[in-house]
Amino acid sequence: MYKVVLLRHGESIWNMENRFTGWTDVDLSPKGIEEAKQAGKILKEKGFTFDAAFTSVLKRAIRTLWIVLDELDLMWIPVYKSWRLNERHYGALQGLNKAETAKKYGEEQVKLWRRSAEVRPPALTKDDPRYPGNDPRYADLSEDEIPLTENLIDTINRVIPYWESTIAPTIKSGKRVIIAAHGNSLRGLVKYLDNLSNEEIMELNIPTGIPLVYELDENLKPIRHYYLADEEELKKKQQEVAEQGKARA
Amino acid sequence: MYKVVLLRHGESIWNMENRFTGWTDVDLSPKGIEEAKQAGKILKEKGFTFDAAFTSVLKRAIRTLWIVLDELDLMWIPVYKSWRLNERHYGALQGLNKAETAKKYGEEQVKLWRRSAEVRPPALTKDDPRYPGNDPRYADLSEDEIPLTENLIDTINRVIPYWESTIAPTIKSGKRVIIAAHGNSLRGLVKYLDNLSNEEIMELNIPTGIPLVYELDENLKPIRHYYLADEEELKKKQQEVAEQGKARA
Repeated sequence: MYKVVLLRHGESIWNMENRFTGWTDVDLSPKGIEEAKQAGKILKEKGFTFDAAFTSVLKRAIRTLWIVLDELDLMWIPVYKSWRLNERHYGALQGLNKAETAKKYGEEQVKLWRRSAEVRPPALTKDDPRYPGNDPRYADLSEDEIPLTENLIDTINRVIPYWESTIAPTIKSGKRVIIAAHGNSLRGLVKYLDNLSNEEIMELNIPTGIPLVYELDENLKPIRHYYLADEEELKKKQQEVAEQGKARA
Repeated sequence: MYKVVLLRHGESIWNMENRFTGWTDVDLSPKGIEEAKQAGKILKEKGFTFDAAFTSVLKRAIRTLWIVLDELDLMWIPVYKSWRLNERHYGALQGLNKAETAKKYGEEQVKLWRRSAEVRPPALTKDDPRYPGNDPRYADLSEDEIPLTENLIDTINRVIPYWESTIAPTIKSGKRVIIAAHGNSLRGLVKYLDNLSNEEIMELNIPTGIPLVYELDENLKPIRHYYLADEEELKKKQQEVAEQGKARA
């Protein structure tokens, strides 16, 4: 039996400011740093250790991982960074305030952009300064791979090849793996592992900074999963996420 | 023409306590953290950027690198960690106070252990808790590769294969490389690059936290090298290192 730990980064500065983030490289807020420390502490307390770590090329996920590895005294393990674990690309909404966007386009539309697996936010154009093709960290991507916007399915379609080609073989080789990533790249992974429908994944929120442990059989099919948090903390966190959904439409 | 930046980690807690460190995984002191920040700032100021980073599996070097990458907004670049870039293994002296050791064995003997390229400190035994074979980070090493003690030549003999097999090809592929490592693994590399004699390398000290830029020709032969620091700061730093040598025998 294998175990893999999924960890959504702590609160970022733009979460705090209620702005659409996506691929924008926003740092953790002070609260986010605290969440990452807590995640490290509970992993340590529960006796977890790791042989390899995977993360995105966005600093809010990388810093979350760094803080956790520091707490676990595992700064020395290999860390693999891939754009494929990035947050869903939020297209032309990136940088906009969520409440203002709701005022402009209507709450229903914004809800669709946020929650539907299939509806995409308005696309960037290639001359937009936010176009990822201008960023050296994406220099090795083909033009087809560089998103102008993404729905959740698009995100899944770039996460899963990385899982299949790189993360899964690492786990099968017996290495204990942690993945520090983002709300939607992790939801994509969970949808794939648990074979959830588009409707089911829409109902699923992964709270920030709470390690999510998946126990997998020899074919990496999930046996069970659980959060490393006490009942009360988890309830509070999930309520927070649900309320964000409402307040920020 | 290629450029590579060598960076010796900032002051560690055991530097501060005047103890032999070697492979002991001691963290940076507050001063060491400050040195790393300064290194990052001057690299940024001088317009340096990097595509790949190499470091040891010891946290004082890794943390130095993390701080520099953070300052440069390059947390996303790949970081490769190898035991081959570790500090020289200091054998059974690891953990001992330098002044007390000088009292016990005599200043002349300690000077030889510290400064000679060929004399090795007393070896660890394999049942010593400090034996690296008990540490999971060295689990992939063959028994022959796990040192019980090292002189500078031994250190060079495990650094250079990593340079040849991994760092040099990365540089030749056009990637801009930074190496965050240790006094002796970097001296070993400099001895190799500049083809210095055992006597010459003995005279050479690399100050902590000052980026050392090597410009290399198409065969990676050095054209010139220079520190990224003003004359005055560099002088002060080199004097500090020289005085440590005296005071601590």
